[in-house]
Parts: sequence; C-alpha cells; structure tokens
Amino acid sequence: MQETRPPASPPGAYAPTGRTVPTRSAERVAYDKDLVHEILDEGYVCHLGYVRDGAPVVLPTLYARVGERLYLHGSTGSRPLRMTGARDPGLAVCVTVTHVDGLVLARSFFHHSVNYRSVMVHGLARQVTGPEEKRTALDALVDHVVPGRSRDARPASAKEMAATAVIRLDLDEVSAKVRTGGVNEEPEDLSLPHWAGVVPVHTVYGTPLAEPDLAPGVALPDYLAAL
Amino acid sequence: MQETRPPASPPGAYAPTGRTVPTRSAERVAYDKDLVHEILDEGYVCHLGYVRDGAPVVLPTLYARVGERLYLHGSTGSRPLRMTGARDPGLAVCVTVTHVDGLVLARSFFHHSVNYRSVMVHGLARQVTGPEEKRTALDALVDHVVPGRSRDARPASAKEMAATAVIRLDLDEVSAKVRTGGVNEEPEDLSLPHWAGVVPVHTVYGTPLAEPDLAPGVALPDYLAAL
Repeated sequence: MQETRPPASPPGAYAPTGRTVPTRSAERVAYDKDLVHEILDEGYVCHLGYVRDGAPVVLPTLYARVGERLYLHGSTGSRPLRMTGARDPGLAVCVTVTHVDGLVLARSFFHHSVNYRSVMVHGLARQVTGPEEKRTALDALVDHVVPGRSRDARPASAKEMAATAVIRLDLDEVSAKVRTGGVNEEPEDLSLPHWAGVVPVHTVYGTPLAEPDLAPGVALPDYLAAL
Repeated sequence: MQETRPPASPPGAYAPTGRTVPTRSAERVAYDKDLVHEILDEGYVCHLGYVRDGAPVVLPTLYARVGERLYLHGSTGSRPLRMTGARDPGLAVCVTVTHVDGLVLARSFFHHSVNYRSVMVHGLARQVTGPEEKRTALDALVDHVVPGRSRDARPASAKEMAATAVIRLDLDEVSAKVRTGGVNEEPEDLSLPHWAGVVPVHTVYGTPLAEPDLAPGVALPDYLAAL
C-alpha cells in the first residue's frame, strides 16, 4: 500500500465501459470530466456501495476529490475500511453522488420525474496508509465540506491520525447522469386541467450556531459568513 | 410473483441482525419504527445497491413507503429491474436514505462531523406485477414526492403501466443511524482560537415554474403552494 499522488486531471472525458454505458436513458449520460468534477465538488456525502458476504451494502460517507481521485472518510473500525485494508488489489466499490435540482410534475403520472445530477464511480478502493497522503486527504475532506476550514482548526495528532481511516478511489470508470429542463408530455395531455411545471429544490445553510464556550474573541469566520 | 398487500405496521422496533448491528458508533444506531418511518417519509430519493457480476452498483432511485414496504421506481429496461424479474426469491439489495442536517465544525480536525439521519434496509427485492399493487405503488410514488399530486394528474394508461417497473422491498431488516447535537471536543482544545459550532443544512423548494402552455384557467394548486 504505497503512498501515491493523485493522478493529474487532463481535460477530456472518461472512457465508457460496459458498466458505465446505460441500458436506458442514454441521452442523460455523460463522461465529460469537467461536468463530473463539478457534480462531485458540489457535494460532500456520497453513497459507498460494497459487497459483504455476497450481499450489497450502501453506506453514506464523507468524501473529497483531489485531482482524479476520491478520498473517503471512515473510522478504522468500520467494515469497508477493514475490508480494504485486508485486500489486494483493493475492495470493489461503487460510489454515487446525487444532487436533486427539481421536481418535474407532468400532466400524466408517467412523465413525472426529477431533475438531478449524479456521478457514479466504479473501481477498487484502497486504504491510504502513507502519512503524507493521509494528511492531504484529511485537509481535502475538511475543506471540501467548508472551503477554508482546514486552516482554522487543529490538525490531527499522531494518535488521531492512526484512529482515522481514509480510502482512495481513482476516477477511471466514471459516468455522470443528468436530467434538466422542463416537462415531457404526451401531446394529447396538453389540454388536461392539471398544473405542470418544475419545482426547484435547493440545499441551503442556516445561521451558524456557535458553541457556547468559544474562546474569548473568537468571531464567526469569513469563510462561514460566505456560505 | 403474486400480488400482495404491504405488511401492516405495528408499533415497536425492527429486530437487529448481524447486518444491522454496527461495528462502531453503536450509540447512533436505532431500530425504532416511528423514527425509521419519519426518516423514510421525509425523502424521495434513495440509493439502491445491488450486485452485478460480483461488483456493487449504487443507483439513485425514487421510492415511497406504504406501511412496512418500500416501492422503488424504475423503467422496465433498467438493469436491477430486469434482475429482480428473473430471480426467485428476489434480488439482494440494500436501500439507503440519508438526510444531512448540519455541518459540525470542531476546534480539531478529528471531531469534525456531520449531523445526519439515515436508514438502511437490507432484503430481497421483487418486481411488482399485479396491476392493483402496481397502481397503489405508483400513487404512492407520486404522492411521496408531492403530497396530494396523485389526484391532480392523469393516471397511467395500460401501455404506460407496462412500461413502468416497480420493485418492492419489505421493511424487515432495517436500521436507522442518527447524529444530532453539538460539537464533541477534547478538553484541552476548548481554549483554542477556532470557531466551533454547527451550520444547519436544509432542503428548500423554490418558486414553482409553470410550463408555458398550461390549459386556460389552470392555477398553482394548493398542495404546491403549501410546499
């Protein structure tokens, strides 16, 4: 389990594979790297799938992207982390990130839909053991959730580093799936007396709630006010 | 593939199993049915995990709960749907629903966290083929996204019903995982000059965008104004 640098990210597209070419809605699938990065960078919780005793497990997990690599966060005791540690060449995983952008209400049940952007990454996950790469990953994980935060918190001690597990997954076999726009409708439904349209869905941040025991003089930092 | 009624939902708790007892953070896990239902009913996009050629796949999918059963939406051409159709006693799946409620910013990297509520369901998924159950499921799927909508849209025709696949998954092996509250901190970090606290995260709906070609006299319905 050598320490490695994340692969650089040349512009372009991911090569489709048997797993990333869809059997349906082919018009919604894209392999463009910029689009994939944008979707990944907007979120911080992914759903990590792996196989345990022949059955699937899907775990919500924090992640961050560094170049052409994802880092996923876990504790050393969690099952997928222990499984990646024990395996060579790695644990087969599928990581999916999904943003819902709107509810699409058609005049017919059939054309009801959701506007969304999702990314699916297939690959072999490995535990990160090199201290330098682990620190890079932890910085990225903290900054991915709140940009700028990693400079305003105490870095992990050696003991804390040992208790934190990080797995890496390179962005090789990747696809995005996107639905945007308005309502599809059967022509004969257009005159029906039903409202149709799109209800936008947004994720927003509320007012930060400070702990009651902040050290004297500690104010709300600019990077939080900017959220 | 008989038509069946969703199991009734007596109060109480799901029985823990080897798959739903965690290896870590046991204090965050719950089996209470009311809590599980509340988390499931608040969302409409789940992440459906299954195994294909030995590797995991995680697919964002619309779902609805009816009693002690989940219905998941898909097209008849999609892979998991075809796989459930071909299998007896069903396709092994894991369905996970996650809501992020807050970013937990501690004075140390190590105690950074996220407040969230998630539900994980393990089981065997079967395709719904009986027309009555399928209609119940489609009503539930439409109303789960926008309560009240199923009475204000054209129901599926026979042809549309045939082109829509629904899978069912009973709520037997279920657990919830919840983190709430403020920041955990090492006592010696309390005097550090870093802001600490929780940034609430909410999902909100924007102003509905009507299609430009609504039939004359169709106004924004009450059930949408109430969102």
